[in-house]
Amino acid sequence: MIANFRSDNETPVAPAIMQAILDANHGTAWAYADDDWSKRLNGVFSELFRTETVALPVPTGTVANSIALATVTPPWGSVFCHTGAHIYGDESGAPEFFGNGLRLVPVAGKNGKLTPDALGQAVKAVEGHGVHSYEPTVLSITQATEAGTVYSIDEVKALCDTAHGLGMHTHMDGARFGNAIAGLGCHPAEVTSEAGIDMLSFGASKNGCMAAEALLFFNHPQRYATAERLRKRSGHLFSKMRYVSAQLLAYIEDDRWLNMARHANHQAAKFAEAIEAHAEAQLEYPVHANEVFLKWTKQGFDHLESRGIQFGLWPGRDDLARFVFGHSTSDEEVDLLVRSLG
Amino acid sequence: MIANFRSDNETPVAPAIMQAILDANHGTAWAYADDDWSKRLNGVFSELFRTETVALPVPTGTVANSIALATVTPPWGSVFCHTGAHIYGDESGAPEFFGNGLRLVPVAGKNGKLTPDALGQAVKAVEGHGVHSYEPTVLSITQATEAGTVYSIDEVKALCDTAHGLGMHTHMDGARFGNAIAGLGCHPAEVTSEAGIDMLSFGASKNGCMAAEALLFFNHPQRYATAERLRKRSGHLFSKMRYVSAQLLAYIEDDRWLNMARHANHQAAKFAEAIEAHAEAQLEYPVHANEVFLKWTKQGFDHLESRGIQFGLWPGRDDLARFVFGHSTSDEEVDLLVRSLG
Amino acid sequence: MIANFRSDNETPVAPAIMQAILDANHGTAWAYADDDWSKRLNGVFSELFRTETVALPVPTGTVANSIALATVTPPWGSVFCHTGAHIYGDESGAPEFFGNGLRLVPVAGKNGKLTPDALGQAVKAVEGHGVHSYEPTVLSITQATEAGTVYSIDEVKALCDTAHGLGMHTHMDGARFGNAIAGLGCHPAEVTSEAGIDMLSFGASKNGCMAAEALLFFNHPQRYATAERLRKRSGHLFSKMRYVSAQLLAYIEDDRWLNMARHANHQAAKFAEAIEAHAEAQLEYPVHANEVFLKWTKQGFDHLESRGIQFGLWPGRDDLARFVFGHSTSDEEVDLLVRSLG
Amino acid sequence: MIANFRSDNETPVAPAIMQAILDANHGTAWAYADDDWSKRLNGVFSELFRTETVALPVPTGTVANSIALATVTPPWGSVFCHTGAHIYGDESGAPEFFGNGLRLVPVAGKNGKLTPDALGQAVKAVEGHGVHSYEPTVLSITQATEAGTVYSIDEVKALCDTAHGLGMHTHMDGARFGNAIAGLGCHPAEVTSEAGIDMLSFGASKNGCMAAEALLFFNHPQRYATAERLRKRSGHLFSKMRYVSAQLLAYIEDDRWLNMARHANHQAAKFAEAIEAHAEAQLEYPVHANEVFLKWTKQGFDHLESRGIQFGLWPGRDDLARFVFGHSTSDEEVDLLVRSLG
Repeated sequence: MIANFRSDNETPVAPAIMQAILDANHGTAWAYADDDWSKRLNGVFSELFRTETVALPVPTGTVANSIALATVTPPWGSVFCHTGAHIYGDESGAPEFFGNGLRLVPVAGKNGKLTPDALGQAVKAVEGHGVHSYEPTVLSITQATEAGTVYSIDEVKALCDTAHGLGMHTHMDGARFGNAIAGLGCHPAEVTSEAGIDMLSFGASKNGCMAAEALLFFNHPQRYATAERLRKRSGHLFSKMRYVSAQLLAYIEDDRWLNMARHANHQAAKFAEAIEAHAEAQLEYPVHANEVFLKWTKQGFDHLESRGIQFGLWPGRDDLARFVFGHSTSDEEVDLLVRSLG
Repeated sequence: MIANFRSDNETPVAPAIMQAILDANHGTAWAYADDDWSKRLNGVFSELFRTETVALPVPTGTVANSIALATVTPPWGSVFCHTGAHIYGDESGAPEFFGNGLRLVPVAGKNGKLTPDALGQAVKAVEGHGVHSYEPTVLSITQATEAGTVYSIDEVKALCDTAHGLGMHTHMDGARFGNAIAGLGCHPAEVTSEAGIDMLSFGASKNGCMAAEALLFFNHPQRYATAERLRKRSGHLFSKMRYVSAQLLAYIEDDRWLNMARHANHQAAKFAEAIEAHAEAQLEYPVHANEVFLKWTKQGFDHLESRGIQFGLWPGRDDLARFVFGHSTSDEEVDLLVRSLG
Repeated sequence: MIANFRSDNETPVAPAIMQAILDANHGTAWAYADDDWSKRLNGVFSELFRTETVALPVPTGTVANSIALATVTPPWGSVFCHTGAHIYGDESGAPEFFGNGLRLVPVAGKNGKLTPDALGQAVKAVEGHGVHSYEPTVLSITQATEAGTVYSIDEVKALCDTAHGLGMHTHMDGARFGNAIAGLGCHPAEVTSEAGIDMLSFGASKNGCMAAEALLFFNHPQRYATAERLRKRSGHLFSKMRYVSAQLLAYIEDDRWLNMARHANHQAAKFAEAIEAHAEAQLEYPVHANEVFLKWTKQGFDHLESRGIQFGLWPGRDDLARFVFGHSTSDEEVDLLVRSLG
Repeated sequence: MIANFRSDNETPVAPAIMQAILDANHGTAWAYADDDWSKRLNGVFSELFRTETVALPVPTGTVANSIALATVTPPWGSVFCHTGAHIYGDESGAPEFFGNGLRLVPVAGKNGKLTPDALGQAVKAVEGHGVHSYEPTVLSITQATEAGTVYSIDEVKALCDTAHGLGMHTHMDGARFGNAIAGLGCHPAEVTSEAGIDMLSFGASKNGCMAAEALLFFNHPQRYATAERLRKRSGHLFSKMRYVSAQLLAYIEDDRWLNMARHANHQAAKFAEAIEAHAEAQLEYPVHANEVFLKWTKQGFDHLESRGIQFGLWPGRDDLARFVFGHSTSDEEVDLLVRSLG
């Protein structure tokens, strides 16, 4: 038996999502997001986030993040994010590309999280130079973080208050937003639209969809015009957008997104418990969602591999590995993993 | 009965393509185009085009075109294309965006086609100015053209010879490439890799796929590195690329792409015949593929609409309408259209 | 004797301008355009153009034009200009670079001039396509034109009315603005701020300065913030800006700019008269300013060269040459030219 | 008496440089850097740096730096520099603009200097991620640094060796290069072309020129073509380039650049000595060139201001001020400063 914990990016499409794609596949439909599925998105997401929301269906998190940032940031504006943020380390400069040379400013923080203090200091460090320096424009935080932790509602509120106080917009990269909400057990609006988040990359691909994310703008419907141009100009305005939007509708419907995320989190929690009970192996970060960072020995990792466990060592580290649990991770796979840990 | 001839962009996914998507949906697969489906593409397309081919799966024609052009064109290079080309009039500047400000130079030509003479004159008109003017870098032609016509093998060869003689690269926008090959009845290599085309946007979305195009580089495998960066940086490197590549593999297999295109062309031909036999209505352009441009009166168009026929008037013209026939266009729909023409 | 009529770009700095540079060279001065010279520019130009004017000193016409266009045009906006415009054919894509991929749309017109009809048709030809096509954003005209002609006040008004009616901004490339005003004999405001021009590249380098142009925004002081960022970010915010601004102040003072332009125009007029009186040689365009386009034979041109006359054949033409007259063109040089024409 | 130590950017043009400008002001000259002055630059700088050198005259350090970096860095490449580097904190993103979204990576280091270890670690920290992350492309160091210190020959060699070993190019921002060489007392080639530097922004504006810098490429003449396009496209190809090149020629001639820099350094050294002898005031960094960073009290700074001393508090610090000494700083000014320190 082989059990793959490399990434939720490698999981298949969930049956209910695939069924929605099949259901959408009848007859012709207006092209370029003028179809009936796409037209329902604003309403569905406005309801889900309890405020006026404009939703753009896009296929990847990278494009959702990049359009969000470029919509509000001039080329001479900067975006503050965690040193480990996906936008900083994993998108090959997509935000800089969409934003015509905007700058990302990395800020360090424990357990993958930024703090209001660290943000304030980082902004202060580049101030006072007028036209000679970048203009701090956006705070972008990741929920769940790249360390597998989750910001509390109060943490998000405090960060948004600080950012807004500095005249900045706020963006949340929600590539694993479902896992974060499943971890928090709160209403999705509480930690976003109602906590001061202006824009959300609402991820779905990692959690059961094929290639679907919703870029959400809260309370600023006029941002649609710029975002729509950026989507078109980057080649992301699909002619047959119905198949993307149908995924998103099915994903939201009946709390499927939360149920799938809860399952993934639950599987991660079982492994986290096993590590905590282990004599040698340790958790690098608290486990709040569906990712577990295991600090262990080379021998330990070799042993896991020999048992058919697939995972990735962290770049630049030989004592750290990441295990990601998905909507399709089975009990048998987790059992094998836990038993193999010893 | 409603019969929709607005665009092949509005057609559903063909059953065989959808089945390939379902077949790919088992277990985990390496992310970011390292999956087994994506890895087969270079081989499959090298065989189809009878030369060493690098194939990048992407979701839209706009991104295929834009990456192709930006891969070989510096920001101070120019791309010559027909005034009616999709890259010039329908992509909101995507090529300029991907190419960091490259320029498209529109060149007029009858029936949607460029000629070697027109190309030569257009290039000559901007020469002799050194660093002060753009450097002519690429010829981009569309096959089938935006007028629904198809370049012959000899026409493509002559254009490529002229372009290469001027030190330019050659690109073909093949959004309706299947329809062109079905119209020509030749081998696909004859009018591309063997006729002097360096890069091909091999379209599939319009002809039965969901969101899938293959960007092909012939005989220059080293172009992959730049193209791959552009794909990643524009947010088009899907994590679950297997579902795009699976579409492309099924599309090529068993000549499905040609059979679907032949069907569409055949439906178009029936309507073209009816127009030719009509007293008043006229063809604006020769019909070589799956598009028919009907020149007629307002009353005529109103009559068609009253019969449940859906189509689009050409922007800026009230005496011209476009009818597009797809892989899913039924005999009943065409019968209704022909009968309604009167 | 050698007489050089290649370009007013090749002329030296006028004595009064050089004196102003020397006069500015005492002690220290605030850097980055916070000096006393630069601070006077808004006032001086507001007076000259009889309306609230923001003036940015810059060293070249290319950067003045590029900042003007990029300040008001989004990357998906287009700028309509004459096919012969400097921004289209002679700036290697600087407007596209500053404008992050904006598009220039060339429009043909007799004697280097656009007409309201031609503009209207060109805009109409690209309309009706929403997010898929560029958004017409600016009309840019050149005064004096690249053909050496000058738009009348009424012509400028009509063009501006048409552009504004289409929701577009208006820009004037005034690389030879002094020559145009000298030719018109009107007040500079009449053909610019009072005729509907929103932005003017007020050229000075060709007409006696060393490297100095003023980018002027009429009645929209808030445009300064964006323009200033573009100037800084393109490396044009000189630390010692006083030397640029001192040139501009001296250039305006005591009508020096007009007097130098009148001299140049007068020299051009003498040659134009000689051509009109000549049996064979012809004027390609009416002569309104300081440029004369001579249509003649290869033998004729060879003869002029043999007499020590320096000039440039027009790119792509062997029967057309351009002669440019500057502030420093002497009577002796013109006499030699006229005599050599025969 | 007022004594201004705010910045060498505020100094006037040195008499010998101004004389060279006057001397160049006779008759016409070929435009766009085809003049006799500009054509001599390659030879002069090849001799000065004892290797084949291509020299582009440009007006500002920002454009010299930006063209250098953009010439060798793809949009997905990164440039490593000190956290205090001018390119990172003072150019409003010009390198990102010229480089179409390249990234600057700030690296901390004592006294304004990078170390090979810090560079190695910073590069390692972003490695191993393939197409998902930026490609480390250039090391850029500043000589003299923004802290007023100077890298030794060995320090530069070690950094260049590390960078080249990592497959990176090397650039030196020499805005105060004269002051650095005056401080080192070595031959200019020893710490640049012969130490492993590939590209040098050879600054002159701060040290006696009006607006002149030479962008130098060592041993890679083919880089000229790209650099030249970037210069043109950014509006920096002056029509009357002779006046820039004449400054550079006069600046190099007769060791003027070194003599002026030695004077400035000497003036700085006198103030540094006074601080070292002072009971309270302290030097923040060693003084190697023409800048002195004084750590003191608010009362101390107020006292200096009350005596007519002009200087700048460091942004974000109220206990630190910078004093810059220039080619025109007089003994009287330094005497006043030293006396005022008490």
